[in-house]
Amino acid sequence: LDEISEWTIDTDVAIVGFGCAGAAAAIEATAAGADTLIIDRAGGPGGTSALSSGAIYLGGGTPIQRACGFEDSVEDMYTFLVAACGPDADEAKIAIYCGESVSQYQWLVERCGVEFLAEFCELPGIPPGEQALHYVGGENAYPFNQVARPAPRGHKPRTEGNAGWMLMDRLVGALGHDAARLFDTRVERLVVGRDGRVVGAVGRRYGREVTVRARRGVILTAGGFIANDRMLAQYMPLVVGCEKVGGDTDDGSGIRMAQAAGAAIKHIDAVDVTLMITPPLSRQFGILVNGQGQRFINEDTYFGRVGYAALYGQGGDVYLVVDQDSYGIDDSMPVVQPDIEGQVITRVSHVAGTARELEESAGFPVGSLEATLDLYNRHAQNGEDVTHHKSPEWVRPLVPPYGVIDYRRSSGVPYWSLTLGGLHTNVRGEVLNADGDAIPGLYAAGRTTSGIAAHGYCSGLSLGDGMFFGRRAGCAAAGSL
Amino acid sequence: LDEISEWTIDTDVAIVGFGCAGAAAAIEATAAGADTLIIDRAGGPGGTSALSSGAIYLGGGTPIQRACGFEDSVEDMYTFLVAACGPDADEAKIAIYCGESVSQYQWLVERCGVEFLAEFCELPGIPPGEQALHYVGGENAYPFNQVARPAPRGHKPRTEGNAGWMLMDRLVGALGHDAARLFDTRVERLVVGRDGRVVGAVGRRYGREVTVRARRGVILTAGGFIANDRMLAQYMPLVVGCEKVGGDTDDGSGIRMAQAAGAAIKHIDAVDVTLMITPPLSRQFGILVNGQGQRFINEDTYFGRVGYAALYGQGGDVYLVVDQDSYGIDDSMPVVQPDIEGQVITRVSHVAGTARELEESAGFPVGSLEATLDLYNRHAQNGEDVTHHKSPEWVRPLVPPYGVIDYRRSSGVPYWSLTLGGLHTNVRGEVLNADGDAIPGLYAAGRTTSGIAAHGYCSGLSLGDGMFFGRRAGCAAAGSL
Repeated sequence: LDEISEWTIDTDVAIVGFGCAGAAAAIEATAAGADTLIIDRAGGPGGTSALSSGAIYLGGGTPIQRACGFEDSVEDMYTFLVAACGPDADEAKIAIYCGESVSQYQWLVERCGVEFLAEFCELPGIPPGEQALHYVGGENAYPFNQVARPAPRGHKPRTEGNAGWMLMDRLVGALGHDAARLFDTRVERLVVGRDGRVVGAVGRRYGREVTVRARRGVILTAGGFIANDRMLAQYMPLVVGCEKVGGDTDDGSGIRMAQAAGAAIKHIDAVDVTLMITPPLSRQFGILVNGQGQRFINEDTYFGRVGYAALYGQGGDVYLVVDQDSYGIDDSMPVVQPDIEGQVITRVSHVAGTARELEESAGFPVGSLEATLDLYNRHAQNGEDVTHHKSPEWVRPLVPPYGVIDYRRSSGVPYWSLTLGGLHTNVRGEVLNADGDAIPGLYAAGRTTSGIAAHGYCSGLSLGDGMFFGRRAGCAAAGSL
Repeated sequence: LDEISEWTIDTDVAIVGFGCAGAAAAIEATAAGADTLIIDRAGGPGGTSALSSGAIYLGGGTPIQRACGFEDSVEDMYTFLVAACGPDADEAKIAIYCGESVSQYQWLVERCGVEFLAEFCELPGIPPGEQALHYVGGENAYPFNQVARPAPRGHKPRTEGNAGWMLMDRLVGALGHDAARLFDTRVERLVVGRDGRVVGAVGRRYGREVTVRARRGVILTAGGFIANDRMLAQYMPLVVGCEKVGGDTDDGSGIRMAQAAGAAIKHIDAVDVTLMITPPLSRQFGILVNGQGQRFINEDTYFGRVGYAALYGQGGDVYLVVDQDSYGIDDSMPVVQPDIEGQVITRVSHVAGTARELEESAGFPVGSLEATLDLYNRHAQNGEDVTHHKSPEWVRPLVPPYGVIDYRRSSGVPYWSLTLGGLHTNVRGEVLNADGDAIPGLYAAGRTTSGIAAHGYCSGLSLGDGMFFGRRAGCAAAGSL
């Protein structure tokens, strides 16, 4: 916060973090004619974006959606996101994100050279093959299928399995040599002028202090804080010890250095928790129950909704009750352990010929599972789930013998967690203070900010809003927005 | 953050907010010989403390507990509070709070002249008469009766009904004329020196700027933020529109001005939500169910746990199922409306001779309530609640005709809410920055801080930790701690 007499580096726009949001910001800032410097802690670009599935949340009628035979509209996408990302979803951000989603798709394809294969994959999670299109937020399940026409909106770049590395490769290629890069440099604090304007940043490189003057602004795209256990304990204690979605660099440094400069934080307790009961999809014929033998959610919804409900609503005390058809009960399967793809092999921990016997062996209160199964099976004969509204295609009576798969937090099944909250920004990517006013010279995007997702999430929103609002922050800082 | 050439007022310690925490801080700061100034927005002392029930959470064997025949220990109090205030309860604060609780009681009685009547009131909520002692946190119900020996720890000063005004009257009396007072003054920001030390505060009084130099420190005791809907939307959107526990002055100004000076916030999403199903106590014979006809909590636990589970776990979609003995079904009772005491009169909205009929008339899924009642009644014959562990004294089969009392958030029944998070402080009352270091010259206590309660609450903890850590902040600022 003091005057710095001599700057190590002088630039128009300084970007802290070289993931997808930083890359997108740099592409736009350089296009607008601004001298641009990207700084990253690592030895090269990529960040957590490069480790991700690569799925991007896009819709409103993209060429891929149309080629796969799905109708979509900006209105349906907007209505869905406001419902799925709430409560308190940022309607202004969602509106502009949806309205420009097809144009964002074109930018990815035409400006950046990202390729998408127009094939639909019906599996939830990352398409194992090269297919682009898949469901990523429970659009086609209760309750969201009641409020908006469902359409798949996950767009994965064309490669097998994870595609985040490929997306980053294309973004870095599109940027070319237009921006300067400073790697192995940990930015530690912002420099604020006497008039309150952010005028630069101070970092450390191989033990030496580096001062960067940014004449037009600093853009923070430094990731979330899932790697910072102290911040997790402070803002989301239930998540401490859960499996982390993100890299070591997601330490909250971008959020904290902006706070020290007066920035407000928003939805800082918001978290996505993923608990996958599929693949195989047949497990959706089973029923999820808590330790009291009660159902608590429709099993066919987005795995982020399942995980959040399991951890926050049920204290991580949940089980899947299955039968022969929904699982293929086989006691010879190994105990829970991650396989090479990071997926999880689970096994049936208890099997019994009646609900009552299963209660006894698995430790549910006497009569509890029996009551739940009786009620479920009675309506399932008519293809109905009257309490939790699972889609009829996954509803049929469960037939003894029954099995229980242990999905408790304590069982070792991963509860993958991702922080969603961060700096409070507007649709120009400007960082706001506690009074809601923009802090001059300070911008941010990606998981350093609270973005499209408030308290609910869909896969693909972090790459999605990271690039979209990264571009806007790059334009705004460079003066072209 | 700039230099101020001429100060309106010069003092050793400036305290912002004249509720119980500010008063306690002033008593200690003046006792330590510091020139002390208390500033408040209102025209006199009191704040939200004066509007409260007056219950103070005290234990570990106070004279009142012993006189009423309850054994208690520091260990039991500590174990209970760590469990009830978690996850991530501040163990250091709880340890010192419990260890010095009897001495805090003595301070209230001997130093401040607060009187407590050694009588026990078995009703939850505020004792209607002059009795001091009552249960305020579900100590005697599941799950806490499993981890620590229960004891009532609510201590209400001797007067009928609400006693907060009397507590403030005694504190103000104990302070006497030892501290200067500046009323009708809204403090707007802190003054931070070039070295990062807080050296004063700037406020506004009748339109004029007032600058206060505080040579030893500023203590923020300005309340929580339940009156600030923008902060609620940002940190706890589900609470927007709920009934507010607190005054208009709980606008978060203390938290925000400290944040602007680099302070960290803690548990900012934490909230207490009260939903009272009693009095009369007989309603605890009923069962609380959600919209799927499922139980979700033991009905005899603390009303703050009921409210939180109802709002956050069930989306405010909850009902109490009762019978003749537990309620006295009478359709002539009025619809929900607050009475003069702020209590609520509720009525049975639907009555039916069988569970199935009740489902149909009240709109529960077919068979859902029947399954829940069958299971509950089967075990209730043996005095057991195998799924939610209600105490046997409140467990007996419900007998038709059944009635439903509507406790939905949308029904108009109040969900009383109180913010619990705030500035991150240590046990000396020092305000910490994002790195966990104390900000020189800045102290805080009461609901401006995250105190004893992290994500769980008990009545009496806000007055309790407000006064306790207010005293410590006063000592620390004055240099006597």
